[in-house]
Amino acid sequence: MSVFNVELKKVVDDSYDIEMGYRLEDQLVEDLETGLLGKIRKFAVITDSNVLDLYAKPISEKLSKAGFKVELFVFPAGEKSKTRQTKAKIEDAMLEKGFRRDCAVIAIGGGVVTDLAGFLAGTYGRGVPFINYATTLLAAADASVGGKTAVDTPLATNLIGLFNQPRKVYIDIAAWKTLPKRQMASGMAETIKHACLASREMFEFIEENLDDIMSFQKFACEYIAENNCKIKYDVVMKDERESGLREVLNLGHTVGRAIETVSDYRLLHGEALSIGMAAMVLLSARLGYMSEEEAERVTKLYARVGLPTRIPDYIDREALVKKLYTDKKVRDGKLRFVIEKGIGDVVEFAPNVYAKPIEESLAREIIMEL
Amino acid sequence: MSVFNVELKKVVDDSYDIEMGYRLEDQLVEDLETGLLGKIRKFAVITDSNVLDLYAKPISEKLSKAGFKVELFVFPAGEKSKTRQTKAKIEDAMLEKGFRRDCAVIAIGGGVVTDLAGFLAGTYGRGVPFINYATTLLAAADASVGGKTAVDTPLATNLIGLFNQPRKVYIDIAAWKTLPKRQMASGMAETIKHACLASREMFEFIEENLDDIMSFQKFACEYIAENNCKIKYDVVMKDERESGLREVLNLGHTVGRAIETVSDYRLLHGEALSIGMAAMVLLSARLGYMSEEEAERVTKLYARVGLPTRIPDYIDREALVKKLYTDKKVRDGKLRFVIEKGIGDVVEFAPNVYAKPIEESLAREIIMEL
Repeated sequence: MSVFNVELKKVVDDSYDIEMGYRLEDQLVEDLETGLLGKIRKFAVITDSNVLDLYAKPISEKLSKAGFKVELFVFPAGEKSKTRQTKAKIEDAMLEKGFRRDCAVIAIGGGVVTDLAGFLAGTYGRGVPFINYATTLLAAADASVGGKTAVDTPLATNLIGLFNQPRKVYIDIAAWKTLPKRQMASGMAETIKHACLASREMFEFIEENLDDIMSFQKFACEYIAENNCKIKYDVVMKDERESGLREVLNLGHTVGRAIETVSDYRLLHGEALSIGMAAMVLLSARLGYMSEEEAERVTKLYARVGLPTRIPDYIDREALVKKLYTDKKVRDGKLRFVIEKGIGDVVEFAPNVYAKPIEESLAREIIMEL
Repeated sequence: MSVFNVELKKVVDDSYDIEMGYRLEDQLVEDLETGLLGKIRKFAVITDSNVLDLYAKPISEKLSKAGFKVELFVFPAGEKSKTRQTKAKIEDAMLEKGFRRDCAVIAIGGGVVTDLAGFLAGTYGRGVPFINYATTLLAAADASVGGKTAVDTPLATNLIGLFNQPRKVYIDIAAWKTLPKRQMASGMAETIKHACLASREMFEFIEENLDDIMSFQKFACEYIAENNCKIKYDVVMKDERESGLREVLNLGHTVGRAIETVSDYRLLHGEALSIGMAAMVLLSARLGYMSEEEAERVTKLYARVGLPTRIPDYIDREALVKKLYTDKKVRDGKLRFVIEKGIGDVVEFAPNVYAKPIEESLAREIIMEL
């Protein structure tokens, strides 16, 4: 018997830039011309049916004009497309078009596109580089930092995937204007959550400038784009493998995710999160970590965005209580909630422990009230 | 316009041990009991129909007895199973059995099993640890170092996958006895290739001890198991992303891969490689990098193993010449070969350049002769 040690220690540098601005198509082309991805001159542009004409086609044309080889790969917009089948279809189409290891992927769209395309890039030829051109506030708030890519399966959301970092992210704030109002509001739900968990200053900025944000004023949109990245980066960096701190990003998601599922996706993720945040501040106040006034202030801000803050009547509240147990924070059969400590902070219950076991009876009480 | 820099530089340690010996089932169980994978107590054992009764079931039973939660996932043996569909089926079965992120994968079998299971582990829950229990000489020679995992698609072999390092590899030499003779010989093809490209001493050892290897004598099998790992490690370590040096592992594969495909897989990979090695030494001699005697010595050793060293009559030689152009080393439409420089070394044509452009006419000449 003998043992051979395969020594594989190395420094990995996955750093990248997030560029925020208005209409960054030319910037993207220029970056590629000046060597952002080295010698790569062959691009698979992956997008969905919503973004195809608005962004993906124009960008592809610009890239072609600049002398790059570009092919477009489109799938039907919506969470329902985020599957292994869509991934395989695009892979086969890329192979057929002669794409090998010397290509890169450019994802243009919202979170579904960046999640799927980032995963695809990570396994194509055992990994080719990819770039995200994010066209929604939700993608800007959520998908541009953290490196999470994945698809859904019939039995699980986001469980098949990779940690895979893009080589650059573009956040095109001008694209937010093209979003349906419901989508923009849904993106604001994660933005306000970020403020609630880490920055009272950001919360107050949103309170004061909400109209400017919702009418796409430059200073206001840039402020939230930047602060979303900054807050998520601070949390993710300190806990890259989701051991403890990263759970704070789950603020409001215990009830939120459950409502999203029980509503059978009639509610958008941000709408469900808004109700989940209302439940969370109610709980935080009940436990004495937050004043009633502050809790109300959070709920009011969500309402001003046009988001629901009460559980709709068509939701079966008992089914909702049951659904809470599928939350990924559940441990040893106990529900666990991230709790807010006044606006702009969360409670650290023990070193690196940010989720508190909550009795089902208390969770039920909150849900019945809301 | 503003830019946010996501700084992600870190030290990654993917080091692992390869343990070589006879019947390592108990060692595996003991390693898991003593914390090889930390607190993980839930294992998905992935195997194929050939290995199920011989190794996978007994190991699963031992693990169960030791108090671990174990489930077996079996697919039909053979390269034809190495697909995205098989991966998806096992993923769904694992999800149904309640496997989430707190599990690990144990691959038990040859290269098809370790390739598929390693890829699956890399994307399950965005990555769970995996262990390889290699039961074939080919898996020991080829799959235990390098971190390559992948599946095939209708249009490409091994193109969808990941670089993903196992947490430990077990090479069970006793399992080689259970292999059909053709499979064992096929594994020897890669082993002799390793000797040819890096170690004259190993080549001479095989010449002297071939009968002892083929009758599974301990000292002889351990010698080749160890030296396979050592040679592959030296090459792969110096060139982890396949930029230059790693091409030397492709020695004999230019013609070999092409024959394998043109034979429509009637020839096993090692059998095709054996013919490819015969072509390569002929070419190396023709170019003056090797004496005729040394070239013959290589071909003779392959023949002694019972491997073919001439192109079978049913192969269309013109089709074969055409097929050469699908080789991954082709650059700017030119064929490129790795060339042997006497037994135990390869020619470095320029710093970090190990493949030489070869005229089609010369390649055809060699193929017509063989």
